[in-house]
Amino acid sequence: MNNPLTHFNEEGRARMVDVSEKQVTERVATAQGTVFMRPETLRLIQEGQIKKGDVLAVAQVAGIQGAKKTSDVIPMCHPLMLNGVDIQFRECPEVDANGLCSIHITATVKVTGKTGVEMEALTSVSMAALTIYDMCKAVDRDMFFNEIGLTYKAGGKSGTFTREQVSEA
Amino acid sequence: MNNPLTHFNEEGRARMVDVSEKQVTERVATAQGTVFMRPETLRLIQEGQIKKGDVLAVAQVAGIQGAKKTSDVIPMCHPLMLNGVDIQFRECPEVDANGLCSIHITATVKVTGKTGVEMEALTSVSMAALTIYDMCKAVDRDMFFNEIGLTYKAGGKSGTFTREQVSEA
Amino acid sequence: MNNPLTHFNEEGRARMVDVSEKQVTERVATAQGTVFMRPETLRLIQEGQIKKGDVLAVAQVAGIQGAKKTSDVIPMCHPLMLNGVDIQFRECPEVDANGLCSIHITATVKVTGKTGVEMEALTSVSMAALTIYDMCKAVDRDMFFNEIGLTYKAGGKSGTFTREQVSEA
Amino acid sequence: MNNPLTHFNEEGRARMVDVSEKQVTERVATAQGTVFMRPETLRLIQEGQIKKGDVLAVAQVAGIQGAKKTSDVIPMCHPLMLNGVDIQFRECPEVDANGLCSIHITATVKVTGKTGVEMEALTSVSMAALTIYDMCKAVDRDMFFNEIGLTYKAGGKSGTFTREQVSEA
Amino acid sequence: MNNPLTHFNEEGRARMVDVSEKQVTERVATAQGTVFMRPETLRLIQEGQIKKGDVLAVAQVAGIQGAKKTSDVIPMCHPLMLNGVDIQFRECPEVDANGLCSIHITATVKVTGKTGVEMEALTSVSMAALTIYDMCKAVDRDMFFNEIGLTYKAGGKSGTFTREQVSEA
Amino acid sequence: MNNPLTHFNEEGRARMVDVSEKQVTERVATAQGTVFMRPETLRLIQEGQIKKGDVLAVAQVAGIQGAKKTSDVIPMCHPLMLNGVDIQFRECPEVDANGLCSIHITATVKVTGKTGVEMEALTSVSMAALTIYDMCKAVDRDMFFNEIGLTYKAGGKSGTFTREQVSEA
Repeated sequence: MNNPLTHFNEEGRARMVDVSEKQVTERVATAQGTVFMRPETLRLIQEGQIKKGDVLAVAQVAGIQGAKKTSDVIPMCHPLMLNGVDIQFRECPEVDANGLCSIHITATVKVTGKTGVEMEALTSVSMAALTIYDMCKAVDRDMFFNEIGLTYKAGGKSGTFTREQVSEA
Repeated sequence: MNNPLTHFNEEGRARMVDVSEKQVTERVATAQGTVFMRPETLRLIQEGQIKKGDVLAVAQVAGIQGAKKTSDVIPMCHPLMLNGVDIQFRECPEVDANGLCSIHITATVKVTGKTGVEMEALTSVSMAALTIYDMCKAVDRDMFFNEIGLTYKAGGKSGTFTREQVSEA
Repeated sequence: MNNPLTHFNEEGRARMVDVSEKQVTERVATAQGTVFMRPETLRLIQEGQIKKGDVLAVAQVAGIQGAKKTSDVIPMCHPLMLNGVDIQFRECPEVDANGLCSIHITATVKVTGKTGVEMEALTSVSMAALTIYDMCKAVDRDMFFNEIGLTYKAGGKSGTFTREQVSEA
Repeated sequence: MNNPLTHFNEEGRARMVDVSEKQVTERVATAQGTVFMRPETLRLIQEGQIKKGDVLAVAQVAGIQGAKKTSDVIPMCHPLMLNGVDIQFRECPEVDANGLCSIHITATVKVTGKTGVEMEALTSVSMAALTIYDMCKAVDRDMFFNEIGLTYKAGGKSGTFTREQVSEA
Repeated sequence: MNNPLTHFNEEGRARMVDVSEKQVTERVATAQGTVFMRPETLRLIQEGQIKKGDVLAVAQVAGIQGAKKTSDVIPMCHPLMLNGVDIQFRECPEVDANGLCSIHITATVKVTGKTGVEMEALTSVSMAALTIYDMCKAVDRDMFFNEIGLTYKAGGKSGTFTREQVSEA
Repeated sequence: MNNPLTHFNEEGRARMVDVSEKQVTERVATAQGTVFMRPETLRLIQEGQIKKGDVLAVAQVAGIQGAKKTSDVIPMCHPLMLNGVDIQFRECPEVDANGLCSIHITATVKVTGKTGVEMEALTSVSMAALTIYDMCKAVDRDMFFNEIGLTYKAGGKSGTFTREQVSEA
């Protein structure tokens, strides 16, 4: 009986799954995640956009490069020639029950290839989130990332996957 | 007046902060995060460890390499000669209110250097989480990561930072 | 008259050979190599597999990532979108004439592309061997690698290449 | 009781060994290896050096870059600021019992640091050997690498290691 | 109205342009640049070629690898499977009005793909120029690079671009 | 007699120069370069800064990462733990004799180490220039780079180097 975790060979050791027989199709994936922070931290980021020091411009670059680096940093990922990467940030200045604000990150990756780009989208979101942390950690070490997950995937044999948002509730 | 976000120069453009004057000291940082998944997914991972196909062994390698790649993937991070990286996984088989199990990841990074290793610890956790997702996505596309954040930091001028856990509540 | 070493241009300087006119075909290559070590070293590796500390799991990851890094580390290699990589380890606990045991490594790489994957298979074996050395060097600095070479290649204009084993005899 | 394979933590998972307490000292390591090939292949390489198309010049660059990439490609290796890398090639045109010639590679790496550079020297030799194969494979697919191993190491707590040559006999 | 700089999304943030709809065609690009240096520096480089120490052999390797690294170092570049890279050096020993000699670099890159290789050709020239500087800086810190630009491009919807040379006049 | 090009060993092959005996000192280097472009291209870049689509923000990130990647892309460069990197852009909207505008790039890199950071500063300028080209090439394929060179260097045995500007005249 086969291991349902396809990333293992018959000896139980990790492999890069053989996709020789898979079709080259248009594929797209979208992932999201949220960086929680103090209201003062979000205010500094927002002021930087209109004045000086755009944190999200750097995070955007990191996220796009992160998508391209996915097969380098995730051991079993296939190298892919990405068609495009785009990232959106949504600032949420309303304070939640814990007194925190947030920035919501969405990354969409496209490819014409034999494997999907879910990992590229997730890696892109993670890199953008890490870069926001890096650039603001001098003022807010308590930031954290929540609900990093896949929200959309199309193309390929397994069909389309959609969910409104990543969360437990 | 200086921008409190130190990663920007006087023109408001991103820079790699000059640490020439900082002391070389022993520094350590610990970060954590949690991968939520279906009970069946955790069961497959746990069976792999005692039988064949160890997802966490691959995630461990990815996490350690992730710590080493931090200055390559996070634009303003300083290159550092890490002294050591260690990662712990704690499997949480009890089902939560949403019917999910989880794996809790903790990464600790050490350096003798002029800057801290918070980003290395956070990147390490992120890479390990992404690798768990990659290796199990064939059976559970709904996995997500929560509460990725810093829990401990020591060494350097800003002193020691500690928190029990990363969460809003 | 052309230089039979196709990696040089008409001025005798290295080039990445132009494969524009080559056909995209299914290609596969298998390489192998052997790490020789003391019986005690092999015993420690084997115990790690059933108990704690799996050297070969780490070497497996290194070998797979090595295949993906080939065009980065071998100057004239073409970048390729690999279809799959698999690595097998065969432990040889019988002591040879010199009192040594060994681990035999086999790597198979597949691609749909314009150039073969011989270098990817050979690089994969080399990285796996180097990682075994790295993880055991605290107990056996005398380990060495022998008979790293190609054993199989198919696809592409030059046809199929096969040999039972890599060796002089 | 500790695992004598120091690259594992108490849970039996791989770690990058903590070298915080190790001394910064001058360290050097030398590794070697041999590429076996047909006499005609060696002749083409030698003619390239005096005429056009210097295979060993490219292999030299690959070997030096390989030393620098060691911590990127070998999962548990520490990043190190290498002081110097040098590579020597010795051409052996005399035909051996199997009708083969060879090129003998020696790489020496130096560092002022907390860990040794054995892996850097071995990786350097491996990359140089792989590059020779790559550049000559159009004329000799049967080439293979033998006796890749460490021959010298000095500096650090474990003291000096020397052997004349890497071989079983 | 669209931003004529296509590398930005509707929010004005950088993106990797979506090329999903673009045709896969044969594409080629040629770039050039010139390294100016003292006559004595050029003489040392030329002597190295016929005697010992070939600066341009190392620059050639750096230029070819630079073409392959383009999507890694230029943030919005698409990853591409290059078909071939070739670099030419033309030594200009005649002294110009400022008493300087020069080496003229030309790099040609080919791909079968959805986007052009202008950036790959320009990056290749830049890396070759930087390497010449690196290897000669001990004798001539005043070297500089001039007129690095595109001279030819064919394939793709925007058609063919040609200019004799890169210069203001 | 020694080769004045120190990057070659006694056999005339490239080496990474041994800096074991050099002192660890504070070192700094500044390089500059100029990207020439049509007035319309500069206008689009300047509008992006105040409205949407900041080309220079992306070039800034590419330049900083370029400094960190220097030892990866320039074959004989030593890996270094950079203390800081900063980049300045000066827009020159006045049209020159050839009807062109320009952006002047200055990069300053600092390190506490055994070797200088001239190559890091030059690589940083080159990467920033290449990124400006990449992001504007859809509207101006004729852009080119001039006068990329070192303007300042301090620290280390060879002393301080200064020049007002990089140019022939």
